[in-house]
Amino acid sequence: MRIDIITLLPELLQSPLNCSIVKRAQDKKLVEIFVHDLRDYSSDKRHRRVDDYPFGGGAGMVMQIEPIFKLVEQLKSERTYDEIIYTSPDGERFSQQTANKLSLSENLIILCGHYKGVDQRVRDYLITKEYSIGDYVLTGGEMPAAIMTDAIVRLLPGAIGDEQSALSDSFQDNLLAPPEYTRPAEFNGWRVPDVLLSGHEAKIEEWRLEQALERTKLLRPDLLD
Amino acid sequence: MRIDIITLLPELLQSPLNCSIVKRAQDKKLVEIFVHDLRDYSSDKRHRRVDDYPFGGGAGMVMQIEPIFKLVEQLKSERTYDEIIYTSPDGERFSQQTANKLSLSENLIILCGHYKGVDQRVRDYLITKEYSIGDYVLTGGEMPAAIMTDAIVRLLPGAIGDEQSALSDSFQDNLLAPPEYTRPAEFNGWRVPDVLLSGHEAKIEEWRLEQALERTKLLRPDLLD
Repeated sequence: MRIDIITLLPELLQSPLNCSIVKRAQDKKLVEIFVHDLRDYSSDKRHRRVDDYPFGGGAGMVMQIEPIFKLVEQLKSERTYDEIIYTSPDGERFSQQTANKLSLSENLIILCGHYKGVDQRVRDYLITKEYSIGDYVLTGGEMPAAIMTDAIVRLLPGAIGDEQSALSDSFQDNLLAPPEYTRPAEFNGWRVPDVLLSGHEAKIEEWRLEQALERTKLLRPDLLD
Repeated sequence: MRIDIITLLPELLQSPLNCSIVKRAQDKKLVEIFVHDLRDYSSDKRHRRVDDYPFGGGAGMVMQIEPIFKLVEQLKSERTYDEIIYTSPDGERFSQQTANKLSLSENLIILCGHYKGVDQRVRDYLITKEYSIGDYVLTGGEMPAAIMTDAIVRLLPGAIGDEQSALSDSFQDNLLAPPEYTRPAEFNGWRVPDVLLSGHEAKIEEWRLEQALERTKLLRPDLLD
């Protein structure tokens, strides 16, 4: 798999893409991630500007179509992309199902929005999918791009040590995960539920399923619909 | 405002907390952000372990209560915290309203989950609020903590240059933002809507409101309920 991320702030993606699972997946050649500095594609060689005032007035700056077009065309001439994604608060909600689906892609482009957003023509003519990671306003699309990359990359076979661990995560079976406990069995007077110390595997499984169901009913009944 | 972030992977937070708006807000002393490496509070001085196998078996590792308790108690002895937040996929949905509310806090702790999660007793006895940034599984709570920090910090007065710009973002008025365009007026045969080039302010405002409403109806009718 290959992911090309287009950004105005490549330094913002430094640590998220070079730590933990995402780093290991790259080391293992499960994924190649390229971060492209959009300013390298500015036609303004001197100030490397890639944004301008919005037509019709108003606060904030808008990312211009030209440098994005140039870079996207170049990438598309080199390989076929499954999706060209724009991170936007009004995009389709990014979910675990989205991550599952995208993890089967060969090549993805993620364009990180910034300032007031991007010239609408980029969205109309270049982008194939818009995703929002949630209903909140962020400074840019870099963290959303890092989040999507993490959610996708950890699903690639071999990316996390223990396959079982990804399967038992929340959402994969539409249930929230049951509570977990570890040593010590008692701390500050707070005890671990006896069943978990019983060694009785079937009972433990039953308890966990019960707890997962109960927690889902209480906190996220929508997942059970 | 002060934000204390507790993590197993402080390096993952390096770039998100030291770039762009969040960096500038710290430079301007609008917010102090402290990243605490949980391993410094391990009672296992040699291996600095802070996780252990789950009671009752199963894949993955669980973060232990002891080091978290030690650090949280220390922080709480120094000042009063508005909330002690845990980032978890089964938490309450983090939204722009949450960010607005939290931006009025004096002191916040954010505990980043990892591995299979954290010993349930931490959630039962130490945490005051659990937030999820969306329905997807991530490697850890670091990116969610960075996302929340960004969403909150950019609301602090003076954090972004142009106050008007935050007000006209998506969600602040329960409408998605209207499309934006910038130079050139024509690119690759794709033209900017005439009204935006008209210079007629009232018409432009009217067009923008229409577009915002239309876009919201089409993409996120739930926001209009």
